[in-house]
Amino acid sequence: MRYHKIPDETIQRLPLYWRALRLLSENRSHVNSKVLAEIVQVNPWQIRKDLSYFGGFGTPGVGYDIKKLSCQLRDILNLKNTHKTALVGVGDLGSALLGYSGFSQLGFEIVSAFDVSTKKVGKIKNNVNVEDISKLKTLKRKGIRLAIIAVPVKAAQETADKLVRAGVVGILNFTPSYLVVPKTVKVISIDIAMDIARLPYYLPTNRAGKT
Amino acid sequence: MRYHKIPDETIQRLPLYWRALRLLSENRSHVNSKVLAEIVQVNPWQIRKDLSYFGGFGTPGVGYDIKKLSCQLRDILNLKNTHKTALVGVGDLGSALLGYSGFSQLGFEIVSAFDVSTKKVGKIKNNVNVEDISKLKTLKRKGIRLAIIAVPVKAAQETADKLVRAGVVGILNFTPSYLVVPKTVKVISIDIAMDIARLPYYLPTNRAGKT
Repeated sequence: MRYHKIPDETIQRLPLYWRALRLLSENRSHVNSKVLAEIVQVNPWQIRKDLSYFGGFGTPGVGYDIKKLSCQLRDILNLKNTHKTALVGVGDLGSALLGYSGFSQLGFEIVSAFDVSTKKVGKIKNNVNVEDISKLKTLKRKGIRLAIIAVPVKAAQETADKLVRAGVVGILNFTPSYLVVPKTVKVISIDIAMDIARLPYYLPTNRAGKT
Repeated sequence: MRYHKIPDETIQRLPLYWRALRLLSENRSHVNSKVLAEIVQVNPWQIRKDLSYFGGFGTPGVGYDIKKLSCQLRDILNLKNTHKTALVGVGDLGSALLGYSGFSQLGFEIVSAFDVSTKKVGKIKNNVNVEDISKLKTLKRKGIRLAIIAVPVKAAQETADKLVRAGVVGILNFTPSYLVVPKTVKVISIDIAMDIARLPYYLPTNRAGKT
């Protein structure tokens, strides 16, 4: 099934809806946008608008069919199959990501890990063999199209270049670098510092930002 | 100076603008929304709208005064002073956060760390002494109002409850839990799984979500 182009902001919220629906499906068959909104902390009108992009219309008084909507979201997000993923950088953060169960629950499997340190290369972490960074080019042959970058910031762009050359088309970037990649490659950046940076705004002692 | 209430979505983008402006300030005095937009990957009209909330109007043909705007953003975000922060959970992720330089660059200083494991308590990591979780109540006395939760998901709500009792008013939550806290406490959640979940949508092989 094909859908009209969905805005990035909507795509960003779809995984939240999908996870909430999977939880709800254990106890009920339908849900309205108000209940869903409370769980995912998004406005009900925003949810209705987001879902309308692909014809996810609820029945008035009944709400959305959880099972049906959940399948649609999974198809749109392309989460039906397992996605083999590579990890570059096996420091503290990389190690945390290797042990993170949230990925496998969504069908992401970290099957390859790379580092530059001779202390790490050859070790097995969470059932994954850590290889030397020079082996990145093997990704194409292994059919790995997604990668996670958890290297120091100064190595970020170089790592991205190597991944692109190795045929990777989707990158989850944990460095604060803005990565330059071809248009055919999608980068999603997680910048923890930018998230904590908005926390002090909400402190009760902050009078600058509030009326 | 007081401003009208700024929407959460705008507050979310202000740190991005602020960081970009700090980088730009090294080479120039003014910037227009188009150039800023390219750096932060946000629409120019969105930037103009966001900045208009607190009177951050650029001069036509000249753009925004980088130094002035940067100071305003810092004040609104309440990032003028250092913020002492506690970390709960010193596993792989917690260790990565302790060593993460991005926090200190923004004025966040992790000064206390807590864990339940007797193997970790008493150790010193990145100059921070890891204390037993039972010592959380000392936070109030130490004037620590912000905390980072990096514990296993099943311990997340209990940890949040303890932090709230210890006087914490801002929490950065790294677990996929939805934390229930009093309205006076702000929780910002970072859910890595939800970020990777939208990556397969953009894969060239995905035909479900695209026209």
